[in-house]
Amino acid sequence: MESNGNMNHGVDNTASTITIKGILSLLTQSVNEKDEKRLISLGMGDPTAHSCFHTTHVAPEAVVDALQSDKFNGYAPTVGLPQTRRAIAEYLSRDLPYKLTSDDVFVTSGCTQAIDVAMAMLACPGANILLPRPGFPIYELCAAFRQIEVRHFDLLPQKGWEVDLDGIESLADQNTVALVIINPGNPCGNVYSYQHLEKIAETANKIKTLVIADEVYGHLTFGGNPFVPMGIFGSIVPVLTLGSLSKRWIVPGWRLGWFVTTDPCGMFRKPKVIERMKKYFDILGGPATFIQAAVPSVLQQTDESFFKKTLNTLKQASEICCDRIKEIPCISCPHKPEGSMAVMLKLNLSLLDDISDDIDFCFKLAKEESVIILPGTAVGLKNWIRITFAVDPYSLEEGLGRIKSFYHRHAMQ
Amino acid sequence: MESNGNMNHGVDNTASTITIKGILSLLTQSVNEKDEKRLISLGMGDPTAHSCFHTTHVAPEAVVDALQSDKFNGYAPTVGLPQTRRAIAEYLSRDLPYKLTSDDVFVTSGCTQAIDVAMAMLACPGANILLPRPGFPIYELCAAFRQIEVRHFDLLPQKGWEVDLDGIESLADQNTVALVIINPGNPCGNVYSYQHLEKIAETANKIKTLVIADEVYGHLTFGGNPFVPMGIFGSIVPVLTLGSLSKRWIVPGWRLGWFVTTDPCGMFRKPKVIERMKKYFDILGGPATFIQAAVPSVLQQTDESFFKKTLNTLKQASEICCDRIKEIPCISCPHKPEGSMAVMLKLNLSLLDDISDDIDFCFKLAKEESVIILPGTAVGLKNWIRITFAVDPYSLEEGLGRIKSFYHRHAMQ
Repeated sequence: MESNGNMNHGVDNTASTITIKGILSLLTQSVNEKDEKRLISLGMGDPTAHSCFHTTHVAPEAVVDALQSDKFNGYAPTVGLPQTRRAIAEYLSRDLPYKLTSDDVFVTSGCTQAIDVAMAMLACPGANILLPRPGFPIYELCAAFRQIEVRHFDLLPQKGWEVDLDGIESLADQNTVALVIINPGNPCGNVYSYQHLEKIAETANKIKTLVIADEVYGHLTFGGNPFVPMGIFGSIVPVLTLGSLSKRWIVPGWRLGWFVTTDPCGMFRKPKVIERMKKYFDILGGPATFIQAAVPSVLQQTDESFFKKTLNTLKQASEICCDRIKEIPCISCPHKPEGSMAVMLKLNLSLLDDISDDIDFCFKLAKEESVIILPGTAVGLKNWIRITFAVDPYSLEEGLGRIKSFYHRHAMQ
Repeated sequence: MESNGNMNHGVDNTASTITIKGILSLLTQSVNEKDEKRLISLGMGDPTAHSCFHTTHVAPEAVVDALQSDKFNGYAPTVGLPQTRRAIAEYLSRDLPYKLTSDDVFVTSGCTQAIDVAMAMLACPGANILLPRPGFPIYELCAAFRQIEVRHFDLLPQKGWEVDLDGIESLADQNTVALVIINPGNPCGNVYSYQHLEKIAETANKIKTLVIADEVYGHLTFGGNPFVPMGIFGSIVPVLTLGSLSKRWIVPGWRLGWFVTTDPCGMFRKPKVIERMKKYFDILGGPATFIQAAVPSVLQQTDESFFKKTLNTLKQASEICCDRIKEIPCISCPHKPEGSMAVMLKLNLSLLDDISDDIDFCFKLAKEESVIILPGTAVGLKNWIRITFAVDPYSLEEGLGRIKSFYHRHAMQ
């Protein structure tokens, strides 16, 4: 029957796009079921699996209150509840030199949907987008579904994963619709300085494109550089800021994100653009109304001590990670993580006997040691690996210990 | 700056697409603020505004339990939690001659996202889709965003809003990717018989296209015809069944829907199709994990008496609506509603003095009487109106009474 064939006819470059979830699922399937060791995953960025990462009591209480009030079972406006938009605008404005308004904020079903909305808004025939390498593959996948050409610029490990600004200038042309930066960085765990972000803004202005600032790990910094939101440079270049409750409040499953025009010059405030955005939101299922209704309380009432505790836990975990890696000769860390929940590590294959590449490394590791880590290929860097350290210290120690044993078993003699 | 221009370059046929929310919002703005009469909306299909429509205690209790268990703050698989998929498969299988499996079910953020997924899956260059007129404009909007050509077939008011099957055959060609039916019907309030649905399936088979069966109002029937799911005819034609908790459980704001391959012959089970579907779900933000976790309890533990009460309330409301309309000469009801929450009514403009069309009728009514109803143009039928009767009886009586006064003031002398 032809109709079913049609389910294949669409954009087929999606077929070549790897997803993190896809590859982690394959790795998990290759774990030896008879292994008596428990499975340790240093692959997924979901800290809720570990009791040391736990949301503040404020958050579920606010949701229960909203649900039990019986006022939020109906539809919310597709762009979000007014009080939710206002609360997010106030929350983000705390760190900006100007005030955002409710109209700048669109509530999304997690940061993933915010990425998709940004891509859908920018899609046009011939469009290209500049994405970081290494990066977060949902961008590549969204671009493929929207027929946007992807051009990669490098993040430089020897410079703390800073953006290769010269590279950006050589990649851009008049069809470049946006430059994406993820800060604090996933997968690298880096945090950009004020100065570097300013240079990114100036470069974007020079190549006449807007910046999509993925700040889903916003405020999750524990190194030398504090978190600086890209929106600070909104007067140099229009910024679309994407974020969510997921990481800072450790509730990724709540699917509460935002798409924000951080744009004091009002470049996005053209009636046609706003009309198109609103219509696009009409076809999206946003987050549940009662979760939206809880957002003002969550943003306003969370105690500073909760954030500090999370940062301490992350800092300690990142230190365990770096210390243990020093004991594994085939893995090196070019830049100690200062934020987010993951770090990129370089594999030295010449020290290994029978490992052909990062994918081979990760599959053999899963099979032999029941430890899951993400091959760098999944985020654009072959022969690197990404380790998520938002894991309880005991699992982290044990997982890295097993990687060490794995190394010794496979080390070049 | 060019970059912002790019936000306009996309598909511009979306600009011409009216949305129900858009037009209701304009109508609400045109209400006279100084009017002492309270605003009565018979426009939106959100019954939660009325205390006579209230969800069962089972539903919020299940959500609170899931949230407080502390086990569902993390990510769910993008296609949905396994237990949620299984529970939806079991729920839908109760009414089918075969059993659905978890693999047939994809959990979506409301039925709206299920519609968008269906469109995204079917989009390919040159594709066209057959949509009912009158219909539900989100389909038109999704098609426009996906560059799918829309071809409308008529629903026939004199035949209980049955599908014009001959029309369908003349519209279809080899690029027709799907035929959409909404049953129980929105905006018409009709319910199709087993025989008519079978004929639709045979027609779809003849024109070699699949059927998208929008059953968001599934089981909400109170007339002669019981609800028959289209999936019963899945062996005649592959069916994509779309649904949600929204209407039957009166929780539209929870955004918990499903996209189900109701397809006993396994036409959708090609690895490439499944791969593409799974990847597409990777870029969507689905419903919150803890709401998904509540679904098995909600589906299994809701008492039959809750459903009966809702149906009685809807039946009474539809009767009030029909009775009061008989007193308004310029409005006639070609087919008494038997299901869903709305009814289409014909305007006889020749009986009115200074009303040019349905839009003029609705705007003047909003301004003079603070009553909001939807002009038929918004759902594809000029000089008709849609009235939502899922409203408390007092508001319904008062609203229709004001429409009667409006008629008398504007009646041709």
